Amino acid sequence: MIKPWTLDPDRLFDPEPSRRGVARELYEAVADLPLVCPHGHVPPVLLADPNASLGTPAELFVVPDHYVFRMLYSQGVPMEDLGVPTRDGTPVETDHRRIWQRFAENFHLFRGTPTGLWLQDELVNVFGVEEKLTGESAQRVYDHLAEKLASPEFAPRTLFERFNVEVLCTTDAATDTLEQHKKLRDEGWGERVRPTLRPDALVNLDTEDWWGSVKKLSEVSGMEVTGYHSFVQAIEERRAFFKEMGAVATDHAALTPHVERLPDAEAEGIFARALRGEAGGDDAARFTAHMLVELARMSVEDGLVMQLHVGSLRNHNETVFGRFGIDTGADIPMATEWTRNLGPLLNEYGSDPRFRLVVYTLDESTYSRELAPLAGHYPGLSLGAPWWFFDSPLGMRRYLDAVVETAGVRNLAGFNDDTRAFASIPARHNVWRRVVSDWLAGLVTTSVVDVEDAREMAWGLASGQAKSTYRLGELV
Amino acid sequence: MIKPWTLDPDRLFDPEPSRRGVARELYEAVADLPLVCPHGHVPPVLLADPNASLGTPAELFVVPDHYVFRMLYSQGVPMEDLGVPTRDGTPVETDHRRIWQRFAENFHLFRGTPTGLWLQDELVNVFGVEEKLTGESAQRVYDHLAEKLASPEFAPRTLFERFNVEVLCTTDAATDTLEQHKKLRDEGWGERVRPTLRPDALVNLDTEDWWGSVKKLSEVSGMEVTGYHSFVQAIEERRAFFKEMGAVATDHAALTPHVERLPDAEAEGIFARALRGEAGGDDAARFTAHMLVELARMSVEDGLVMQLHVGSLRNHNETVFGRFGIDTGADIPMATEWTRNLGPLLNEYGSDPRFRLVVYTLDESTYSRELAPLAGHYPGLSLGAPWWFFDSPLGMRRYLDAVVETAGVRNLAGFNDDTRAFASIPARHNVWRRVVSDWLAGLVTTSVVDVEDAREMAWGLASGQAKSTYRLGELV
Amino acid sequence: MIKPWTLDPDRLFDPEPSRRGVARELYEAVADLPLVCPHGHVPPVLLADPNASLGTPAELFVVPDHYVFRMLYSQGVPMEDLGVPTRDGTPVETDHRRIWQRFAENFHLFRGTPTGLWLQDELVNVFGVEEKLTGESAQRVYDHLAEKLASPEFAPRTLFERFNVEVLCTTDAATDTLEQHKKLRDEGWGERVRPTLRPDALVNLDTEDWWGSVKKLSEVSGMEVTGYHSFVQAIEERRAFFKEMGAVATDHAALTPHVERLPDAEAEGIFARALRGEAGGDDAARFTAHMLVELARMSVEDGLVMQLHVGSLRNHNETVFGRFGIDTGADIPMATEWTRNLGPLLNEYGSDPRFRLVVYTLDESTYSRELAPLAGHYPGLSLGAPWWFFDSPLGMRRYLDAVVETAGVRNLAGFNDDTRAFASIPARHNVWRRVVSDWLAGLVTTSVVDVEDAREMAWGLASGQAKSTYRLGELV
Repeated sequence: MIKPWTLDPDRLFDPEPSRRGVARELYEAVADLPLVCPHGHVPPVLLADPNASLGTPAELFVVPDHYVFRMLYSQGVPMEDLGVPTRDGTPVETDHRRIWQRFAENFHLFRGTPTGLWLQDELVNVFGVEEKLTGESAQRVYDHLAEKLASPEFAPRTLFERFNVEVLCTTDAATDTLEQHKKLRDEGWGERVRPTLRPDALVNLDTEDWWGSVKKLSEVSGMEVTGYHSFVQAIEERRAFFKEMGAVATDHAALTPHVERLPDAEAEGIFARALRGEAGGDDAARFTAHMLVELARMSVEDGLVMQLHVGSLRNHNETVFGRFGIDTGADIPMATEWTRNLGPLLNEYGSDPRFRLVVYTLDESTYSRELAPLAGHYPGLSLGAPWWFFDSPLGMRRYLDAVVETAGVRNLAGFNDDTRAFASIPARHNVWRRVVSDWLAGLVTTSVVDVEDAREMAWGLASGQAKSTYRLGELV
Repeated sequence: MIKPWTLDPDRLFDPEPSRRGVARELYEAVADLPLVCPHGHVPPVLLADPNASLGTPAELFVVPDHYVFRMLYSQGVPMEDLGVPTRDGTPVETDHRRIWQRFAENFHLFRGTPTGLWLQDELVNVFGVEEKLTGESAQRVYDHLAEKLASPEFAPRTLFERFNVEVLCTTDAATDTLEQHKKLRDEGWGERVRPTLRPDALVNLDTEDWWGSVKKLSEVSGMEVTGYHSFVQAIEERRAFFKEMGAVATDHAALTPHVERLPDAEAEGIFARALRGEAGGDDAARFTAHMLVELARMSVEDGLVMQLHVGSLRNHNETVFGRFGIDTGADIPMATEWTRNLGPLLNEYGSDPRFRLVVYTLDESTYSRELAPLAGHYPGLSLGAPWWFFDSPLGMRRYLDAVVETAGVRNLAGFNDDTRAFASIPARHNVWRRVVSDWLAGLVTTSVVDVEDAREMAWGLASGQAKSTYRLGELV
Repeated sequence: MIKPWTLDPDRLFDPEPSRRGVARELYEAVADLPLVCPHGHVPPVLLADPNASLGTPAELFVVPDHYVFRMLYSQGVPMEDLGVPTRDGTPVETDHRRIWQRFAENFHLFRGTPTGLWLQDELVNVFGVEEKLTGESAQRVYDHLAEKLASPEFAPRTLFERFNVEVLCTTDAATDTLEQHKKLRDEGWGERVRPTLRPDALVNLDTEDWWGSVKKLSEVSGMEVTGYHSFVQAIEERRAFFKEMGAVATDHAALTPHVERLPDAEAEGIFARALRGEAGGDDAARFTAHMLVELARMSVEDGLVMQLHVGSLRNHNETVFGRFGIDTGADIPMATEWTRNLGPLLNEYGSDPRFRLVVYTLDESTYSRELAPLAGHYPGLSLGAPWWFFDSPLGMRRYLDAVVETAGVRNLAGFNDDTRAFASIPARHNVWRRVVSDWLAGLVTTSVVDVEDAREMAWGLASGQAKSTYRLGELV
């Protein structure tokens, strides 16, 4: 029996009729706005190479998606059986239909999760699947998807147009030569697909093969990195290069938002030790804390928006990490302290009109306690969208509940999809736009704001704030 | 004037008609499922002794219930006036009608609390009380209750059948000889009433009369505990005995979830110091941290589910504790860190298919930040029901809101009542089933899941998850 | 075009009709109760001086209100342009019409914020403004307000009557001679306007010009402070004096709730060092921790209710603080630990029937985790209203959601407006009364409480709890 699969046009709207009516009205005005994607992880080659394809259904939906395989793993499905490649090349499942079958049989695990919402939206809206995904329907759905994926209508660039993406920023190592971005620029896509500089592998002295990254930095920057000062100059060169290539922002991940400007001599000393392979103790933590201030200083000077993603303890499961590598071994959030930690940086640059810092947290208790009050004061600080586990209907509601009363809408950075799953981009923005519309409808029906104000707030949250925060405002 | 007292058949359902309709439908399908009670504190003698009785109304509802007397105490009612026995035998109120009168006069304090909901449900549904409990009605209600309590229909075993309890696990000291459980088994109740091994008094070196517990361990296990290794062996013996007696789980309480495998020599050293009465410094904390890993190792080997209840600072009010003993002096929650703390244990056993750990927290901020992400990855980790203060309608909603989006339903351990108040068991499960049904109705009316999926989720949360998590699945 | 501006009589009530109906009914019964204001910062001279005026519209709504100018500052409006006076007298904007214009043009920033709600309520209800405040309408609204403010109907005492304030407590330095309060008493306003003793500047050794405060303490108390003991005696004298002048409470701010009774010799030693200007290290922190216990001891003896406001890291933005002084440079909340910290104080006095401590937190995660469980046990502890950033519709809902299930209503201190903005007082109480009514309507429509109970709870939260907690119960 075929279970028909459809998407409710009113999904995510409160069922109370007056609120639902307002939500619908607000949503209709923002539903089709072009998608602004200032932060994400789509590989640029997907758009740069005109022959790029999204792969098989298993390659598109299962193998590379840690949101998906971690849930199956949690219920006892070995990652090998899902085709996740091992670091040492130990063989894993290669039959994509079998991978798909296992996924489909466990699709019920995603009930009530945002991944479940995105997957349904992609399958139904992007690919036109008409029956609910189950173990029984798995192979029919696979056939359907495989056929679509083989057709030119599902080439990434075609989908980019169909998705109505206005601008998409990728995330790129600071040592990247941006070949793909060059190609994109040459073909007139430079304003639509932009790089973002992420220097974590250089700034974090504990990164695997840090020395290799530094060597590569010397090569690509054309500046011999022999010590702290040439290191800083080489990074500045990369920033200038990325900016020339269309970048509007940099991105930084850290376990804590601790920042601290070290005396020059100390930064030099730590860097010299690192070059000699002798860094130890708290050298790495202190150097990162220092470099965050330095990167803020550069941000003031070159106008690149600084993004800070904080609070994820990476690779919690050491065995899985050892076997499958990063983004497989469970990155787990930790409690985060922002008020004291960000103090030195905000005191130095937070009131400078040239500066813009966007912070992302995995500690929801800091939304109302620390981040909204900070963003509601410092001109240079914006609060990023609900991130990762909280990029979900209830996560978004908690975020809006916790921050708008204190920070208003203008101190928020709007939405970003933060995804490497290109085909899920519209679904993710759609959830945000629906939740925002419904949340604002709650304000309207309780007369906290009038509908005219709500309309402007909806526009700001759906698109305007992302553009202005990331200085993409010059685009349509 | 008699104020009639009834229970709304739609209580705890959102008033919006479409949601309420779905909630009612979902609820009706799970309302009468047998009660699965994998963790609680009902004294086994209550069911083992065919002549056991629930006592007077004061003994049933007030004297032993720290949920009740702490609220009255907070408003200035001395615990002596409520008949709470003192440790030194100083006389307290013995007139149960006067105790009941004080309770009834203060019954308004429980407005809006889960205790208030349970009490009303018990009085109305279990005992057929028909007028609201007030100071004015107190003695009439007492008469009514006393009459019921004296009748054979209110014998614990009769109520057990009437409550439709499928299985009830008690909590028992590791040194318990399980005489009551033996009796129950002999009478064919062994699959319905099961013991749970709780070795806290042995594992926590700071426990009052720890040495006495160890001595008792030697006696009951038949293994002379002379050092760390015989200690571990004796505990293993107890586990085997409890398992033989029907146990499916062990239970452990700790102030923090810090775990750390010590080198054997160090564990031996601490234990030897403890035996000599010379343990000090952080010996107790380190030994507990070590034993949690050891107990996990045993769990892998014998298949008993490991439960961890963390974060309660016991006996906050030292004077009250000194006078009335444990469970009277306010156990107050503390902030809890799970991500780093559980790391060593989860890395060692969290991916082993034989292992099952169920964690309970009193720090709600960790639901979405730490526990749901951990449970959404490690196959061996399940997230326990909202505990203690959060075993409440709003506590349950916050829990479901915070965890399902990340962990799904299958990584949750369902519900348990965790109560020593036998007669309140149906009321507690009823609140959970209602809140779950209403919460899922929220997902259905916003089209996050379809009603068919919601039905399976409701069944899982009401009963199935508790059974499968605690490996009680072989029961009906 | 004039945009008409009105206030929805059903604002802040859930739109679902049955809930809204109950909310309206509950609200109507408490809407017009006299306002009980046990904690706030209205300058007493405003009521003591019959010629006092609220000033220009800019002086009333913008210049002194850090809720307002911090939001404009966060969006790049210099505080100088808003007329905020500098410490060094550097000139700032003096044209109040231009200040008002800037405020009006940025009024949209307050959409969805409690400040926005209060401002609209004040403008419409208190001042009869009929068109929405925008850049376009700014000067017309200014004219309207200026005319009203010049009229005798808008003299503070007239408004006090119109606002139906039953009692208003101010906050006064412990060294204040209470001249304004004396005047008020002489004119028969002594029971309506009461002082509150705040000894922070004496207790916190790090306060700017601490020595000057101590000197002043000697003068006003008539007791020469030469050491710790005379210091304590002088504070006791001030408490007696304040009590005589009508005070019912004291107020204390601290970064953490750490309390610790020091041995006398140690307290003496620290104080002696401070007098010699030699205090250092953790002297200040330890002295504050000690004085909080001492102040609790005094509270037990004289019956003044002790208030503790904890968790704000003052003057986060050092440059702004340096330029404009306190209450301008962003006070940002921090995570707060209550369970262990308050232990010593609660163990010493928390069960004493003479003692009453009201605590205020900026860490919402402690509501359900620490404070409600503590308040639900200790007779001497009451939980204060949602404070500062959380004095907002959603902040109030989170508070009620988090605390009532555990602490009930009777362990809450009701509401206080905590404001220096006199004209905003009715708006603030109104938000609370509406949110409480709507929240209770939620309990009624889900049959958690019946409507009769809800009515009493509404009365308690709107007025009764504030009066009884602050021992103002002898008033009407």
